[in-house]
Amino acid sequence: MLDPQNVTIDAESGAIAPETEHYEKRLSDLRQIFADRIALDRMVGEEGDRLVYQVRAFRKNESDLWFGTTTIEPGRVGSEYFMTRGHFHKRHDMGEVYHTQAGKGLLLLQARDGRVEILEMHPGSCSFIPPDWAHRSINVGDDRLVFVWVCNVEAGNDYGELEKGMQRRVIAGVSGPEMIESGVRG
Amino acid sequence: MLDPQNVTIDAESGAIAPETEHYEKRLSDLRQIFADRIALDRMVGEEGDRLVYQVRAFRKNESDLWFGTTTIEPGRVGSEYFMTRGHFHKRHDMGEVYHTQAGKGLLLLQARDGRVEILEMHPGSCSFIPPDWAHRSINVGDDRLVFVWVCNVEAGNDYGELEKGMQRRVIAGVSGPEMIESGVRG
Repeated sequence: MLDPQNVTIDAESGAIAPETEHYEKRLSDLRQIFADRIALDRMVGEEGDRLVYQVRAFRKNESDLWFGTTTIEPGRVGSEYFMTRGHFHKRHDMGEVYHTQAGKGLLLLQARDGRVEILEMHPGSCSFIPPDWAHRSINVGDDRLVFVWVCNVEAGNDYGELEKGMQRRVIAGVSGPEMIESGVRG
Repeated sequence: MLDPQNVTIDAESGAIAPETEHYEKRLSDLRQIFADRIALDRMVGEEGDRLVYQVRAFRKNESDLWFGTTTIEPGRVGSEYFMTRGHFHKRHDMGEVYHTQAGKGLLLLQARDGRVEILEMHPGSCSFIPPDWAHRSINVGDDRLVFVWVCNVEAGNDYGELEKGMQRRVIAGVSGPEMIESGVRG
């Protein structure tokens, strides 16, 4: 039988303590998701292999729920904002909750039936992600984007279904973020 | 198929928008949980039937997860702090996550095997409540205690099993909150 436990979450950095999982994604890990690979390679050459985002989690497999934080650094690859890979869940009947702690973001969602939605992320926004909607978070602000996520341990992440990319991209336009067609069909 | 949706959470008041459920518990609703019923009746006579706590939720039954806030006013009945009723889940395999937004509280937990645990609640604390642990939250501060909770829609609340009360009570001692035996056996 599991014991109750407090986990401290730092809303500014996304650090959690204790953590059971932690991974980082750098520019070179994300060549497949950004449209402008020439800009990406140039950035790595000039600025080094910068951190794009990190995920920290508290997971007990014997429980139903787990939770953690995702922290996306501010930045762009060409005109495209730093973002997560995005994924469907393996379990088609399991969704997720994203509670934004700091920064300014967009949550890009794509359903299996092809529909696309976008939600704003800002401190106090709690995004309800229903089952069967792929989700990618995008930092469109000048500071770190930090959010707390909660989902079922068994939800699982399926990155394969988005290998071709999502149907839309979010780029920096003249007067702020703009959503454009990516050329990928859902 | 459900649509994604943003819910705004006010960390100071616990208000959420949109909300699908909202209930309040006042002193007269909670006669069974406080030890000092004479003090309770006197309070109601002198101060009116004061609000003790409220629960607001965003629930879509077709989803796996739902979430909401619990807001406990500061106050005491005799020496005992304002608190929630406390409950087990109907589903013995489903727990909960409590992310404190404002105030200062204690989370009193009692397992079906009789063990008791207590966790501190403060902004930034995210309490992992494993399956099969009853949980009651207690406002030991001078301001509202507000926390966001997330659990499975199917978890269900079972108040009946705690009808006799919990094994411990938290009262205001000379130098702060103290945990005492309630006389109830788990």
